[in-house]
Amino acid sequence: MPKPPVPPEIDAFLKRPNPSVLASVEPDGRPHTAATWYLWEDGRALVNMEEGRKRLEYLRREPRVSLTVLGQQDWYHQVTLLGRVAAWDEDALEDVDRLCRHYMGQPYSDREHRRVSAWIEIEAWYGWAAGRFWNG
Amino acid sequence: MPKPPVPPEIDAFLKRPNPSVLASVEPDGRPHTAATWYLWEDGRALVNMEEGRKRLEYLRREPRVSLTVLGQQDWYHQVTLLGRVAAWDEDALEDVDRLCRHYMGQPYSDREHRRVSAWIEIEAWYGWAAGRFWNG
Repeated sequence: MPKPPVPPEIDAFLKRPNPSVLASVEPDGRPHTAATWYLWEDGRALVNMEEGRKRLEYLRREPRVSLTVLGQQDWYHQVTLLGRVAAWDEDALEDVDRLCRHYMGQPYSDREHRRVSAWIEIEAWYGWAAGRFWNG
Repeated sequence: MPKPPVPPEIDAFLKRPNPSVLASVEPDGRPHTAATWYLWEDGRALVNMEEGRKRLEYLRREPRVSLTVLGQQDWYHQVTLLGRVAAWDEDALEDVDRLCRHYMGQPYSDREHRRVSAWIEIEAWYGWAAGRFWNG
């Protein structure tokens, strides 16, 4: 599997407001997935969760993750990032605003719940497009 | 998390040719994700892989999976199925044809590689729509 940095074409793809699915691992070892917003910045992926979410517990215990990003219009373009949570921000309402602006063009509406950010460092990746490996 | 069977509205959603991402677990315990076609039949999910795919190894070793299904037009409707591979079919070119017809309207073009099917039994699920749990 290729190592980072990703080539420019993949980098440009990851910068778009694409659907994505994040996998974490539950304490008993089973995988858990959830659709998520992400931001791709300087070769890292930012995700942000409401405090109290189960997957926040899972990620604190086991920081290794896999994030599959699908093309907005065409999910036959897809990139999977294998990495680990390398940094946390425990009070990051400003990050969910950035995410919400990226995806929805406006700040996040819920101002009441604490939001936690996780920065994912990439260890390996693969791309897939129209039935073939996509190496950018 | 709700237990199966899923309610009729979720069942109808899952029957559409939606994008989905399947998570398995690698031998060292880290999660792995890949976008996949699936078929939802009688409360189980069918996925099909080319022989030799890494995730086939992962699933044979650790049958527990998580499958997140996104709405075709609107990925703010999403359903995650937690389950396990309960049955294998080791020579299932006919299944990839069924999958390909469901998604692309035609049989699968590659007739040369052996294809393996996995049937996923659902143990729990959750739906999410427009920022709220979606219970159908």
